[in-house]
Amino acid sequence: MVDSIFTKIIKGDIPSFKVYEDDLTYAFLDIHPIQPGHVLVIPKKQVEFVWDLDGESYLALMTTVKKTAQHMKNVLEVPFIGEMVVGVDVPHAHVHLVPFTKVEQFRNVPDMSAIPDNQALLAMAEKLRFHD
Amino acid sequence: MVDSIFTKIIKGDIPSFKVYEDDLTYAFLDIHPIQPGHVLVIPKKQVEFVWDLDGESYLALMTTVKKTAQHMKNVLEVPFIGEMVVGVDVPHAHVHLVPFTKVEQFRNVPDMSAIPDNQALLAMAEKLRFHD
Repeated sequence: MVDSIFTKIIKGDIPSFKVYEDDLTYAFLDIHPIQPGHVLVIPKKQVEFVWDLDGESYLALMTTVKKTAQHMKNVLEVPFIGEMVVGVDVPHAHVHLVPFTKVEQFRNVPDMSAIPDNQALLAMAEKLRFHD
Repeated sequence: MVDSIFTKIIKGDIPSFKVYEDDLTYAFLDIHPIQPGHVLVIPKKQVEFVWDLDGESYLALMTTVKKTAQHMKNVLEVPFIGEMVVGVDVPHAHVHLVPFTKVEQFRNVPDMSAIPDNQALLAMAEKLRFHD
């Protein structure tokens, strides 16, 4: 199997703004955030869709999703952490976590052609990074 | 605590188009679907936000979410089952599962003022209903 862009990120072949990592999962900033602090949580196992993950990887993924969402809510002091699985773009299971105050913000469509703001992303990653 | 609309649904005080039920979770059709076959999965425990559920209820919820998504994908023969946690409307944790083919369909905003199409909802619930 060819490494997905996310597997390359996990291996460190492509840089990422890491937020959290454990044996089975990895969380990092989306470089085209819907809102500042938009995080992607992925299983280390490369499987196309979240629904096709084996039980262990799926529950590990969802455990990291909950842990990360709670942490984001505390650190960013926002009322809501929205979560989304879409799955049409990168063929490696991933869960979006998006902090928001008004629901319209959660419905934003990201501008994929925008140049990532590395300074802002770095500062956000340092703010959000956590360990067990 | 006052019963939420979802607790009333679980108790049968308010009717619903049930898709699945086990000891800790309940799945039923959203009567204002983003797409036909839009399902809500909820924990029986009344907690406002998904992220605030205790570990057992959360993992039970997410296990039912996966099971239901896989079942929907098979029965409806769609390429994608999108999933969403927003949490701004009903103060009882819930997860949206939305079958779609094109990503634009997943971004639809439901018309909450529309009169539910009970015939279509009944037919869909019978199509989607499953047991372990």
